[in-house]
Parts: sequence; C-alpha cells; structure tokens
Amino acid sequence: MSEQSAPGRVIGILGGMGPEATLDFYRHIISLTPAAKDQDHVRVLIYSNPKIPDRTKAIAENGPSPLPELIETARTLERGGAGIIAIPCNTAHYFLAQIRKEVSIPVLDIIGETRLELQRAYPDIRKVGLIAALGTVVSGVYHRALAPEGIEVLVPGEDDQQAVQKAIGQVKAGVVNKGTRETFQSTGKRLIDMGAGAVILGCTEVPLAFDPAEVSYPSLNSTRILAQAAVAWALRP
Amino acid sequence: MSEQSAPGRVIGILGGMGPEATLDFYRHIISLTPAAKDQDHVRVLIYSNPKIPDRTKAIAENGPSPLPELIETARTLERGGAGIIAIPCNTAHYFLAQIRKEVSIPVLDIIGETRLELQRAYPDIRKVGLIAALGTVVSGVYHRALAPEGIEVLVPGEDDQQAVQKAIGQVKAGVVNKGTRETFQSTGKRLIDMGAGAVILGCTEVPLAFDPAEVSYPSLNSTRILAQAAVAWALRP
Repeated sequence: MSEQSAPGRVIGILGGMGPEATLDFYRHIISLTPAAKDQDHVRVLIYSNPKIPDRTKAIAENGPSPLPELIETARTLERGGAGIIAIPCNTAHYFLAQIRKEVSIPVLDIIGETRLELQRAYPDIRKVGLIAALGTVVSGVYHRALAPEGIEVLVPGEDDQQAVQKAIGQVKAGVVNKGTRETFQSTGKRLIDMGAGAVILGCTEVPLAFDPAEVSYPSLNSTRILAQAAVAWALRP
Repeated sequence: MSEQSAPGRVIGILGGMGPEATLDFYRHIISLTPAAKDQDHVRVLIYSNPKIPDRTKAIAENGPSPLPELIETARTLERGGAGIIAIPCNTAHYFLAQIRKEVSIPVLDIIGETRLELQRAYPDIRKVGLIAALGTVVSGVYHRALAPEGIEVLVPGEDDQQAVQKAIGQVKAGVVNKGTRETFQSTGKRLIDMGAGAVILGCTEVPLAFDPAEVSYPSLNSTRILAQAAVAWALRP
C-alpha cells in the first residue's frame, strides 16, 4: 500500500488547541489510513503548541491575539517539510485567511470541509445546530460559510452556551464525565427541537465527550471530517 | 502553572515506529503534565515518519538500514526548535549513538530510562524479563545496559519470541484482540516462571495490548517511562 502515498507528502498539524483534541485528530489520521504495517502510514508533522493564546478570549473578551503564535507555528511546519496544514481547532479558523497569507502551502479549512460533508451526507437540511466554543459562535465562521448555501445555523440559548463553554473548559482540563457528556447531548437535543436537522460538533473538544451512539439525532464530527480531508490529500496519487 | 515550563522548551518526538505507539507516547506526555488549561501544557513537535525502514528487519534480516531516515527525521526536529528528542521505539535505540552524533540536542535513551526506573522501583531484582521485538532482543540493547548493573535479562524461548513478533505486527496493523493480549501476558508469565522479578514491556507496541491490571506480576512500560523523562525535562525550571 505504500505506493498510495507519494513519498514527499507530509501532513502538517497546527495543534495544541488543546492537546487532547490534537491527539484525537492524530488518532483519526491513523485510523483513516489503510495500513497493514508502519510503512503504509503517511508522514505527519505535528506541532502541538498549547502556548497559543486562548482563541475565544481573543475574539469575545478582547484578550491577547493568538495570531503571531499561530503564524509562527504554521511557518515551523512549512519549514519542516509539511505539504499541507490542518488546524484541529474550529475557533482558530477565525484567523484562517491571515494564516494562509503567511505560508506558501495550502491550509485546510475545517469549517469548509464540515460544510461539504453536511451537504454530502444531508443534502436536504436547511437548518443545522452548532455546538461550539463562544469564539466560534460569536465570530460567525459557520454562519458565513453556510448562509450562502441557504443553510441557517442555530446556536444554543445563552444558558446552554455558557454550559457548553464550561464543559469545553472541563474537557481541556482532562475532565470528561457524565456531566460534560450530558451538557453536549442535551444542548444538541434542544437545537434539534428548535428545528435543526443535524448538529455540528464544531469544537474539537466536543467529540471527546460526545458519543453519537448515545443520542437519537445526527451529528457531524468536525475533527474526523478534517482528518478525512488530510488523509485524502496525503493518499492522492 | 505555565511558569513551570520555560517558554523555549519543546519536546521533539522522533515517531512513526509505529504511529499507534507514537500516539500512545503523546497521550502519556499529555496525561503526565499537570494542566488545567491548554497553556499549562508543554510544546511538543512530533515527526511521525512511518517510512523509516523496519528496524528488526535491518538488525535481524540484513534489511535496508533505517539510519539515514532516522537521522533526517531527528534533524528536522532540531531545525524545528526541539530542545530534546525522544524516540518511542526501543529497537531504534540500537542506532542511538549514531543518531546522537548527528544532532546537537540531547536524545533521550528509552533503554537507560527503563533501567533507572527498574532500579528505582525494584532495587532488589537481579533477573528481569524482556518482551520486545526480535531486533531489540538480538541486538542486546537491554542486556548491555543491565549487565553492568548485575541484572540478567531473560528473553522468551524461540516459539514465544515468534509469537511476540507476530503479535507486535498485529498491533502495528491495528489488530488488538484477545489473542494479542494473551500472547504478551502468557509470555510474561513464562519469563516470571523462569525467575524474572518483573517484565519489561520493551517494545512500544506491547503496552497497546497489555493491561498490567490483568496480570499478577510487575511490569515496566517503556513508553510511559520515556514520557516521564521527557515531561520532567520540559517542566524543569
């Protein structure tokens, strides 16, 4: 199978936002690659840089900008030989255009890839729910990607969004329990009740505490969708 | 807690041997770091390069040498800003001295770290069992590290070693089942019956199919031990 992967194709991962989400993303990269031995797998260069300032705080609370550190991390990946960059953090995509300007290799778009997967898997959906960090919600990255397609994004009410934000923080602190799972599950259910045809897990921490088998509604895992795009690139002849 | 980690400290991981073992190593790095938020974690630069030729085949079957690719991968980590390199593959440590010569940053030694942990945790042990890939067994890397300490390394009989080698290949192919677990467990038990006071899981694939809670004898997880050394370095003031 090693012929499938051109020798020079290295997936760059701009990670650490948070580390557990990057770990989960790398896990998807491995499991989505058909491989019977080490050499069948694709080369991956991961810079897990958790020192990148908080994205939601920058967007919603006027905190320090993560952009300089995002750019420096992207450049390190490019210098290290990456042929493409994937960023397993939805909120960081608010800065996508600015990151793309600073490197000469393509940077995948988790929002755009999730939109494509939504349209492929559920072509008739006109309303979709979004479980995401506050920075992703208020920056409107999903709204701007989906509005031109005639798809409305439904977001949680204020109390639910606060609970989601708290649960994301818990996952980042390594706390995944019944409470965090219940927060994501019930928020998703309320978005479905509001008319959503499916729910986007639009923060890479959410899938770490969300099992699609435990709910009765369809969900889209943005981490896995981005990994599919990266692996498809790496295996392209 | 972010004060604990000097800003410049980046752990380099020379990985991909195999990718699942590198994933497991990164998981240990994250879980061994005390952190309540992303920024408390340490920077990690991982080059998962599964194209590195098979180490056991090079040592035991005169296959192509992994050394050029190991050196190039180490150099990429150094150029990317890593301050230390960890190699979560025991067999690759046969080439450790040659890799160290080619980079100017320190390269941790999984064999030496495991020896230190063995002596710390079980100071009275004079015989230790080794479950490892054939390349690690025949190259004698553990024997050479432990003999000067008066510790004898017991290795599986030929049939057991063949079964271990096959099970390691299965783990690399993503197959972890009752059979692979049973192979590692029973091989360890026979090493204990031969007089070993503990068993070294001396291949980073083995802990993926070995639960210490399922056996009645002590074991040392070389993956976790190497991660402890790397995190200790990163958190040193």
